[in-house]
Amino acid sequence: MNFDELALELHKKYKGKMTTQLRDNEELTREKLSAYYTPGVAAVSKAIVENPEKLKDYTWTNNLVAVISDGSSVLGLGNIGPKASMPVMEGKALLFKHFADINSVPITLDVHTPDEIVATIKAIAPSFGAINLEDIGAPQCFEIEERLKAELDIPVFHDDQHGTAIVVLAGLINAMEVTGRELSDAKIVVSGVGAAGTAIIKLLNKYAQPRIFAVDSKGIISKNRTDLNEHKKEILKYSNISGIDGSLSDILQGADIFIGVSRAGLLTADMVETMDKDPIIFALANPTPEIMPDIAKAAGAAVVATGRSDLPNQVNNALAFPGIFRGALDNNVQQITDEHKISAAKVIAALVKNPTAIEIIPSVMDERLVPAIAKVII
Amino acid sequence: MNFDELALELHKKYKGKMTTQLRDNEELTREKLSAYYTPGVAAVSKAIVENPEKLKDYTWTNNLVAVISDGSSVLGLGNIGPKASMPVMEGKALLFKHFADINSVPITLDVHTPDEIVATIKAIAPSFGAINLEDIGAPQCFEIEERLKAELDIPVFHDDQHGTAIVVLAGLINAMEVTGRELSDAKIVVSGVGAAGTAIIKLLNKYAQPRIFAVDSKGIISKNRTDLNEHKKEILKYSNISGIDGSLSDILQGADIFIGVSRAGLLTADMVETMDKDPIIFALANPTPEIMPDIAKAAGAAVVATGRSDLPNQVNNALAFPGIFRGALDNNVQQITDEHKISAAKVIAALVKNPTAIEIIPSVMDERLVPAIAKVII
Repeated sequence: MNFDELALELHKKYKGKMTTQLRDNEELTREKLSAYYTPGVAAVSKAIVENPEKLKDYTWTNNLVAVISDGSSVLGLGNIGPKASMPVMEGKALLFKHFADINSVPITLDVHTPDEIVATIKAIAPSFGAINLEDIGAPQCFEIEERLKAELDIPVFHDDQHGTAIVVLAGLINAMEVTGRELSDAKIVVSGVGAAGTAIIKLLNKYAQPRIFAVDSKGIISKNRTDLNEHKKEILKYSNISGIDGSLSDILQGADIFIGVSRAGLLTADMVETMDKDPIIFALANPTPEIMPDIAKAAGAAVVATGRSDLPNQVNNALAFPGIFRGALDNNVQQITDEHKISAAKVIAALVKNPTAIEIIPSVMDERLVPAIAKVII
Repeated sequence: MNFDELALELHKKYKGKMTTQLRDNEELTREKLSAYYTPGVAAVSKAIVENPEKLKDYTWTNNLVAVISDGSSVLGLGNIGPKASMPVMEGKALLFKHFADINSVPITLDVHTPDEIVATIKAIAPSFGAINLEDIGAPQCFEIEERLKAELDIPVFHDDQHGTAIVVLAGLINAMEVTGRELSDAKIVVSGVGAAGTAIIKLLNKYAQPRIFAVDSKGIISKNRTDLNEHKKEILKYSNISGIDGSLSDILQGADIFIGVSRAGLLTADMVETMDKDPIIFALANPTPEIMPDIAKAAGAAVVATGRSDLPNQVNNALAFPGIFRGALDNNVQQITDEHKISAAKVIAALVKNPTAIEIIPSVMDERLVPAIAKVII
């Protein structure tokens, strides 16, 4: 189904998606106004001067996430800038509210270097309880997130990296069960080393140290390549320990798992046929996967996941981030660690009681998700 | 009445004052999710890429004001920084919603130089439909506002300056009628040349070119003083054309109007007695005025206004800013000009049908205010 027309119609009808409301929905008397604003509010400010921790008791920051993007790497749209990316960030704010009852403010930035982005986010950080970085291009996204995590006292989470990695790990845990494999024994090929691919590689390495091979448009990332930037060199810490060179089709031979976060149609039926028996295919390019599930299955794939809501096994960040932030805000967690991510992935996987080839991942509408994940973000 | 206890109680009970909501309050089906977020939202982003004006049709920015402060000059609290100023800014967001149905996000900044503040606000500006600067100290506030007005394509309005100036002008228009004066003939003494005092002087000059004398803690601002910074030198363009030196009590002799935006108890009964017959006193220091109304009246004052809600004639910015921003957003106004401010002041004054000594300013609860002001911001 094409959602373009419905999207334009709904956005026009409501003139956007979000609004603000007062928490106190009883009558706002003149007396209350004098308590919510001057002169009474001064007592609240003084209490925070004395104890900055009181910020969370007295202001909306206790349940507030900023969704921040510079619009440099949006969906399938690329670098569309701050204005055109606003509907996407406001959409993310809608998801935060809908799935986790978290208030969220979309902030799109008209600056684009890591220094400027870090400086801006640090400057506005006291206004929020947590920060969700969104649709910021690689490799800048890595430096930006790392610096902010080191310098701020609230959680900073780049969802394109970690949300995707968590849901991929959840799906793989169940796909392992369906195909009778152990992740630690698996040979995994990851196609695409942008934000998502990099985070997937790091999290899988942390979880089970499988044999991972990363592939970009020039072939396998290996220590013999002379064209690697710093970010790709870092990936060598977690992948291709043996130093193999070659193409995607070379390295796919005998592989157990293909994870694509790259581009439409990259994976052919021929390539799937050269993989290990009953291979697992996560073809996550959006909106068109690296290979369509029916083609992959005909070529022998045992389990196929995509990013699409109209196909089985949708790898959707919305399975993870609402619960992650719900837990971080409720439990006063300042850093989302790898352990948190792995715990969240296990929780998501466990919500599928009897995994099958067409059900390794719960539905995004599953209301158990947010409370179950939030409980392990401690 | 002391509102401290009620303020602490309400802020704690509701854990802050504001929340976000979806505009669409019907059931959020899976289909709608695919229209509000990926994949459907891409069509909305593309429409904005093609025509950036569509931002207002499709996103919440059409009804969104950022309330931005660095917390450097809050109420009577001074420089309390970004965390402790959050309750005040969130309170302002509450006023925006309550009085004008405008969505508002409080942003408190952890940067404090004009360069950093301007850079940060420019960086986040695409996320908002207008910017309300709040509680930023003088003289930095002047440079910050001027630079942002010149560089941004959305309205930027420092409410401590212009909101106060508009309401003071409105009150003076009616006080002139009550005491049978013409503003253009009046001798006016303004005590305090911070954000509010400066804006009052400029707006009164623009409106009627009365004789204005500005006074700071060292006496009358005059061309003979050697201690004036650039900002105070600029005030000489609008005041003290004749170059008089002296103290507050010197210059008050024979004055028609005293406007205090300075500090508690500065004005004595003796000084009031030296003013022109039936003088007008605007004693706006908060929470304790330059002189209490009963003392001023006993000394001969015909009309007294203060900043307090428990006394007659409250000069309250909330009379002006909700309607100003309502009009700017609805009428696509990019700059709030002096003409807008004067029109707004006239509208506010005209809402008092028969001005008297104890009613020169309408109540902040008067529901005619916002639509009447919005209509003239065109």
